Amino acid sequence: MPLTPEQQAEIERLRAETQPTRRATVPALEEILYQPVPVLDHGFVRVIDYMGDDAAVVQAARVSYGRGTKRVSEDRGLIQYLMRHRHTTPFEMCEIKFHVKLPIFVARQWIRHRTANVNEYSARYSILDKEFYVPAPDQLAAQSTVNRQGRGDLLQGKEAARVLSLLREDAERVYASYAEMLNEDETGKPRDPAKQGLARELARMNLSLNFYTQWYWKTDLFNLMNFLALRADRHAQFEIRVYADAMLKMMERWVPITSEAFYQYRMGGAHISEKGMAVVRRLLAGEKVSHAESGVSKREWTELMETLGRDA
Amino acid sequence: MPLTPEQQAEIERLRAETQPTRRATVPALEEILYQPVPVLDHGFVRVIDYMGDDAAVVQAARVSYGRGTKRVSEDRGLIQYLMRHRHTTPFEMCEIKFHVKLPIFVARQWIRHRTANVNEYSARYSILDKEFYVPAPDQLAAQSTVNRQGRGDLLQGKEAARVLSLLREDAERVYASYAEMLNEDETGKPRDPAKQGLARELARMNLSLNFYTQWYWKTDLFNLMNFLALRADRHAQFEIRVYADAMLKMMERWVPITSEAFYQYRMGGAHISEKGMAVVRRLLAGEKVSHAESGVSKREWTELMETLGRDA
Amino acid sequence: MPLTPEQQAEIERLRAETQPTRRATVPALEEILYQPVPVLDHGFVRVIDYMGDDAAVVQAARVSYGRGTKRVSEDRGLIQYLMRHRHTTPFEMCEIKFHVKLPIFVARQWIRHRTANVNEYSARYSILDKEFYVPAPDQLAAQSTVNRQGRGDLLQGKEAARVLSLLREDAERVYASYAEMLNEDETGKPRDPAKQGLARELARMNLSLNFYTQWYWKTDLFNLMNFLALRADRHAQFEIRVYADAMLKMMERWVPITSEAFYQYRMGGAHISEKGMAVVRRLLAGEKVSHAESGVSKREWTELMETLGRDA
Amino acid sequence: MPLTPEQQAEIERLRAETQPTRRATVPALEEILYQPVPVLDHGFVRVIDYMGDDAAVVQAARVSYGRGTKRVSEDRGLIQYLMRHRHTTPFEMCEIKFHVKLPIFVARQWIRHRTANVNEYSARYSILDKEFYVPAPDQLAAQSTVNRQGRGDLLQGKEAARVLSLLREDAERVYASYAEMLNEDETGKPRDPAKQGLARELARMNLSLNFYTQWYWKTDLFNLMNFLALRADRHAQFEIRVYADAMLKMMERWVPITSEAFYQYRMGGAHISEKGMAVVRRLLAGEKVSHAESGVSKREWTELMETLGRDA
Repeated sequence: MPLTPEQQAEIERLRAETQPTRRATVPALEEILYQPVPVLDHGFVRVIDYMGDDAAVVQAARVSYGRGTKRVSEDRGLIQYLMRHRHTTPFEMCEIKFHVKLPIFVARQWIRHRTANVNEYSARYSILDKEFYVPAPDQLAAQSTVNRQGRGDLLQGKEAARVLSLLREDAERVYASYAEMLNEDETGKPRDPAKQGLARELARMNLSLNFYTQWYWKTDLFNLMNFLALRADRHAQFEIRVYADAMLKMMERWVPITSEAFYQYRMGGAHISEKGMAVVRRLLAGEKVSHAESGVSKREWTELMETLGRDA
Repeated sequence: MPLTPEQQAEIERLRAETQPTRRATVPALEEILYQPVPVLDHGFVRVIDYMGDDAAVVQAARVSYGRGTKRVSEDRGLIQYLMRHRHTTPFEMCEIKFHVKLPIFVARQWIRHRTANVNEYSARYSILDKEFYVPAPDQLAAQSTVNRQGRGDLLQGKEAARVLSLLREDAERVYASYAEMLNEDETGKPRDPAKQGLARELARMNLSLNFYTQWYWKTDLFNLMNFLALRADRHAQFEIRVYADAMLKMMERWVPITSEAFYQYRMGGAHISEKGMAVVRRLLAGEKVSHAESGVSKREWTELMETLGRDA
Repeated sequence: MPLTPEQQAEIERLRAETQPTRRATVPALEEILYQPVPVLDHGFVRVIDYMGDDAAVVQAARVSYGRGTKRVSEDRGLIQYLMRHRHTTPFEMCEIKFHVKLPIFVARQWIRHRTANVNEYSARYSILDKEFYVPAPDQLAAQSTVNRQGRGDLLQGKEAARVLSLLREDAERVYASYAEMLNEDETGKPRDPAKQGLARELARMNLSLNFYTQWYWKTDLFNLMNFLALRADRHAQFEIRVYADAMLKMMERWVPITSEAFYQYRMGGAHISEKGMAVVRRLLAGEKVSHAESGVSKREWTELMETLGRDA
Repeated sequence: MPLTPEQQAEIERLRAETQPTRRATVPALEEILYQPVPVLDHGFVRVIDYMGDDAAVVQAARVSYGRGTKRVSEDRGLIQYLMRHRHTTPFEMCEIKFHVKLPIFVARQWIRHRTANVNEYSARYSILDKEFYVPAPDQLAAQSTVNRQGRGDLLQGKEAARVLSLLREDAERVYASYAEMLNEDETGKPRDPAKQGLARELARMNLSLNFYTQWYWKTDLFNLMNFLALRADRHAQFEIRVYADAMLKMMERWVPITSEAFYQYRMGGAHISEKGMAVVRRLLAGEKVSHAESGVSKREWTELMETLGRDA
C-alpha cells in the first residue's frame, strides 16, 4: 500500500490519541479508525470520522429526547420495519467520512453518486504520483459476448501478457512525458533550467485513466446504502466493487443492526414485477406457466426463474 | 422550557456519560451537548451530535493524511482564503445535528432549506401537546408601511391587548376541539366511550400554525452557514432569527476559526453591483455622483449609500 | 373550484395561443395545459409547463444525436429495461411544472420531497383567502385501531356532525380573527382607522392547517415517480393521494410508455426480503412452510402471504 | 467539428420540423436549437431542450395564474430585485438541457456541480472514438510562478514543439493500444481471430484524460448561473471557460432580462469583506489607509485595491 513513512507516522499518531466525548461512540469502528484497508494494487479506503450509530436511527425515527435505545430487540424491530418499508430519513441521521485512493476511471463512476460531499486531490494544483492500476491476471477478462457491459472469460497466454505489457508500458510512458512536460524535480526546481515547464492544469491531461487519485468522501448512511446496493452488486465493475466490499465491512462495524436489515431487505431481497407476481401466484396454485403466456420479456423471464430457483 | 422531568433526567443521564474516542473532538461544544437552549416561549434548540472541527476543513482542502492542523495561524489563513473565494466543499466536511422545538409557521420557513436531513415529530402518528406561540409584547408589531413583508411599530394599548387575547383564545379553542375530536385521554383510552374518535391524521388539521412541533435537523457546515446567513440576517422574521442567533453561538463554540471568517466575509461583507462599483470608483476619484447618473434603481442607490456610510 | 373570472380568463387566454416550436411536444398533454383539475373541496392541480417526452428518456440513455425514437417497440423495450433495473438518470431528463392549490397540512407532507423546485404563495407578503378544507362525510374516518397512522371506520351520526361543525366553526373563527388583526379591507385600507393592523407575518400564525395555500412545484420525471410511488400508494393519507392520483393521469398523457413501465415495475411490483424469497422457493418446491420457521416477523409474514395471494 | 454526415442529417431533420405548442416559447433560442457550437478542437455544446423564459421567473415569484409578464419594465425591475437580493427559487423554475462533447479532464471539473442531471456516453458499454484534445499554440502556457493553479507565459520554440509532439504521440499510442486490446473492427468483428479482446470496461483505462467524451447535461437556470459564475470567471481553466462562454451566449438568447441582471449583480459585481468595507468608508471620508492598518491579508489588500481601481 502506498503510504510513505511520514504518512504512516501521522496515522499512528492520530490513532494513539483519544479524547473523552459525550457523543454516541462505536468501539468496533473506533478500532479501525484512520487505518487504511488496501484495495487493488495501490489503493485504499479508510474511515476518517463518523457520526451516530444504530441508536441514532431509532432516536430520529422517534424524535426522542434521549438516545434511541429502549431495548436492543425493540430497536432491531424498528430498524427492520423502517428498512422494509423503505423509510429513508432516519438513516440519513448517521454520517461517515472516508479517505479513498482509487484509479481515476473508478472515481468517474463513483462521483455519479451526487448526494455526497467530496474533496479531491487537485492535479491542477499539485503533481500526481507515479501510481497506476494494472489488473491482476485473475481479473484480466475478455469482453463478455452476452452482456455489452460485462466481462467474459479470462485472457490467456500471449494475449494476456501482451495486454499487461501494453498497460504498463503506456502508463510508464505517459507519466514520463508528464514529468518531462512539468520540468520539475521533487523539490519543485526545474529539471532543465532552459525550460519553463508546462502548466500543471495542462500537463495532467496526458495521464491515463488508470492513474490513482484520492479524495475525502462523506455521505449519510442512507446514501451510503444506495451506493453499496449498486456498487457491491455482482453486476458492478470489479474495480469499484472491491471498494464497496471493503466499505460494507466497515458499515457492519459501525451499524450492525442496520447492516443486517440492509442485507435482509435490500441486498438479499428481490423485486418482482406485477406480471412476475402473477406468474408466482399461478405457480404457487400449482399451475404450469410458460414464458409465452407470462407477458414478460425473455430476459425478465430468465431472471425471474433464476430468482425463483427454477429452470428457465 | 417545556421539558418533563423524565426528559430532563434522560438528558442529564446522557451528559453524565463520556466515552473515549479517536475522532476530532471539540471540548467547547461538548460542554453544551444535549442541553436545550430556550427560544421563544416554548421552543428550544440543542446540539445532539457533531462531526469534525476547524481542522477537518483544512484536512479536506489539503486531502491530507493527518489532521488538518499545521499551525493554527496557517489554518486560519487557509480558512479565510477558502471563505473569501467562496469555496464550498471543504466546509461540507463537518456535520452537525440539532433537536429543535419550534412553531409550525417557523418550521415551514425552515424546511425550505432543502440540503439538510430532517425527522419531524408526526402528528399523523402521535398527539401534539398543547403548546402554542404567542408573541411577547415587544414583538407585537404592526404591518410595515414601507416593506410588504416587514414589521413596523409595536402595537399599543387596546389593539395589542385585543390581538394577544385573540391569539390565545383561538389557540385554546382549536386545541380543545382537537382534543374533543380525538376523544383520547392521556393513557390512550376514549374520553367518551360512545365515540370513536377522529383519525389523528385528520384531527391535526384543526390546529393553528403557532402550535409547536419538533424535529431532528442535520446539515453540513457549508449549508448551516447558508441557513444562518439568511436567517440570522436582520431582514429575517424575528421568530426564526432567534433560532439562528442561538445556533450562531453554537457554531462559534464548534468551529471558532470558520465562524470568524464567516462574520468577516459573509455576514459582515457587502456585495456591490457592477454599476455600484463604478459609483464607488468615481467617488474615490473625488467626483460627485448623483443617483440620476448612476444607472441604478432608487432602492439600490439608497442601499448603496447606506453601505458606504453616506447620506442618500 | 376557486377561480375568479379574471383567473379563468387569464387561463383561457393562454390556452388560446400557440407558438411553433422545434422542441419535443406531446399533444395529449398540450390538450390539458394550464387547465386546473379540481382536487378536494377547494384545491386543484394543473400542468404549467413540461420538457421532454418518452423519446427523451431513450435519447439520453443512448446519448444520441437525434431524438430517442428508433421504433416505438424498441423504445418501449429500452424503457422497460431501464425501469426494471432501477436506472435513474435517463428519467431525470424530462421535467414538469405544476401549479397546485392544497391545504397547508398536505403541503407539509409534500415539501418533504426535497428534490424539487418550489415557489409558494407568501402569507408573509400577501393575505390568504378564506378557503379551508373540510373532509367530505365519506372521508370522516375514525382513528384506526390497528395502524397508528391510519384510518378506521367512518364516523357516524352525531359524532360526525359534531366533528364537521367543529372544523367549520373553528376555521371560520380563526379566519375572522386573522382578518380583524390584519385590519385591512380588500383595497388594502384600514377597516378600523384607529388601529394599525398586525404584521402579516404574525397574523398568519392564527390560521389552522386546513387552510389552502398554493405553489409552483417543478420536478423531473424520476423524482415525480418517487413522489407518486409514495403518495399514490394506498398507505398514503387520502388528502395527498387525491393529488397524486390526478398527477398520475397527467403523467400518462405525458409519457405513456414510461407510465406503463412504472405501473408494471414499481407500483404493481413487490419487493420480497431474502428470508421471504426462501419461503417462496420452498413453497414452489411443494414444501409446507409455517411462520415459525420462516424467520420473519409476524407482520412481514402477513404481508408476504397477502402478496402471494395465500391465507396467512 | 466532429459530426458524421448521418449525425448532421439527423440534426437537420429535427431542425426542419416544428410543432404548435401552448408552452412559453423563446424564438431567439429556437433559432439555434440542436445546432452544435464548436468548442476547442473537437468539442461542441448545443441546446437540446428548454423550459420557461424570463416571464416564468416572474410568474413563479408572484405565484400567478397567467404568464409572468405584466409589463416588460416591471418584469425587469422584479428580476433585478430578485437577483440583487440573492433569491434563488424563482430562477429554478426554468430548465435547460445541453448536449456537450468535451475532454475527460474538463468533464471531471464539470461534474463537481452536483445539482444537475447527467447521462454520459459509456465507455464501459461502447467504444470511444479517436478524438483527443491538444491545446492550440496560444494556449500552451507555462506553470504560473505566482499562482499554483494558474498559467504563466506561453511556451516558446523547442519546448512548445516538444510538448505538442509528446501530447500527440502519447495520445496516438494509447489509442492504438486501446484498439489493439479491444481487438474489434468497426463492425464489431475481431481484428485478430486468435484473440478474445479485452473487456471494454478495462480497455478504456488506457486512454488519457484529453480524450473526448460526451453527455447530456440538464440543469435549472439558478444552477446554470452558479456554474457560469464559476466557470466563465477569469480564474477558471481556459478549457472549461470556453464552454461556459458559449453557454453564456445561449443563456442571453434564452433569458435576456435575467442575463442582464446576472452580469450586473453577479459576474460584474464585487464582494467586499467587513474590514474591506471599513477601508472603503475611510477612503471615501478622505482618510489615507495603509495595508498595515487595514487588518486584511496582503493578498486581500491587493485584490481590494484592484477592485477599487487604485494602486496597491
